Amino acid sequence: MFECSEKERALFEAGIKMGTIYHQFVGTPVSSRNISELEKAMEASVSVQPFVESVRIKINISGKGGKDTYDYVSLRGEMIDAILKIRINGVSVTAEMRYNEELDYPLMYVSGISL
Amino acid sequence: MFECSEKERALFEAGIKMGTIYHQFVGTPVSSRNISELEKAMEASVSVQPFVESVRIKINISGKGGKDTYDYVSLRGEMIDAILKIRINGVSVTAEMRYNEELDYPLMYVSGISL
Amino acid sequence: MFECSEKERALFEAGIKMGTIYHQFVGTPVSSRNISELEKAMEASVSVQPFVESVRIKINISGKGGKDTYDYVSLRGEMIDAILKIRINGVSVTAEMRYNEELDYPLMYVSGISL
Amino acid sequence: MFECSEKERALFEAGIKMGTIYHQFVGTPVSSRNISELEKAMEASVSVQPFVESVRIKINISGKGGKDTYDYVSLRGEMIDAILKIRINGVSVTAEMRYNEELDYPLMYVSGISL
Repeated sequence: MFECSEKERALFEAGIKMGTIYHQFVGTPVSSRNISELEKAMEASVSVQPFVESVRIKINISGKGGKDTYDYVSLRGEMIDAILKIRINGVSVTAEMRYNEELDYPLMYVSGISL
Repeated sequence: MFECSEKERALFEAGIKMGTIYHQFVGTPVSSRNISELEKAMEASVSVQPFVESVRIKINISGKGGKDTYDYVSLRGEMIDAILKIRINGVSVTAEMRYNEELDYPLMYVSGISL
Repeated sequence: MFECSEKERALFEAGIKMGTIYHQFVGTPVSSRNISELEKAMEASVSVQPFVESVRIKINISGKGGKDTYDYVSLRGEMIDAILKIRINGVSVTAEMRYNEELDYPLMYVSGISL
Repeated sequence: MFECSEKERALFEAGIKMGTIYHQFVGTPVSSRNISELEKAMEASVSVQPFVESVRIKINISGKGGKDTYDYVSLRGEMIDAILKIRINGVSVTAEMRYNEELDYPLMYVSGISL
């Protein structure tokens, strides 16, 4: 059976958590009144998953043109700023999700690996 | 064009919110460490939707047999207890979601209408 | 215990299904290549729920400004057109979800009740 | 700025897709009547994402004890078998999701890397 290294596994796990953040929570009703609760709950739900050393999530709903007359929006990927550190024994991988204006895309990427 | 009454609309809106609670959050990683944050975030995200007077959510993960070796579970409908009040002008509708052991089903039902 | 009428129950159930359509599937990656599969799967998953007589879903991703350089978008509520009929014995309720330009909002509403 | 290798990126992307499969679709109503549509839609929605060479999803709802009196279940991670190949230029990474009985956990893992 194939065995990947700790570094390879950490990269894979970082991706899983990014997929979780995006696909579990996109669509959630959010306004200025519940941003803070939602950020905290997203961070906490990622933190209970394996190998998560730290996670920080910021939601930005201002200036997104999504504000509807009913005074809330549905969470979209472009509104999420996330930074996540996975640690497996001596290896840590940092990954981020951030809206990329040029691509008009909520880009997920690996921003650091340390052994 | 069809116009429904305030009572009819309130019943429909109560259903929408129940569907939101279930389908937005089922799958979220949850353990004893983040139950409270998740309950609060679910309540807050329902509260920003239209016509919600109050909402109370309890998550019960004990004794569900879902606890995995990695020390968390994915939120399932059976773990959710929700009580929700919708108000449209003078009409209020109360709806609940509660695990029904006989049916082995997370039942959603209208528990009160007051005019 | 409170007992609601078949009409009241049908209205509530229609709302549940609308919440399901929205909150289960918003966020799904979609492009012209998989619209048809996604529409069919959404219809089929609603159809297995109780009391659904018929459901028709159309996804419109053109002209939404959401097209990214990676050639797909995440499904948003504004892209969904749904029409749903709930039947409980002799009562049927029709509900719809449709993007309302004036409100800039994916409006869900009851469009018919027949006894 | 940190630049990861194609192999590192492919591992990260494989994780993202696994997170997508799980967290986008867990909770979807499923019975023997719509398994096939749901499998196809899940495969197709992953396929429109970047770097996916192939993806195969099987849903197994038999013998899961989740069958309710209403004749459908909500999709759970344990019911999903997925195999996914990510390719970035000359590197390919294969990842799988499979229910692990010993752990009672829907395990995601890297099952191959080829350069």
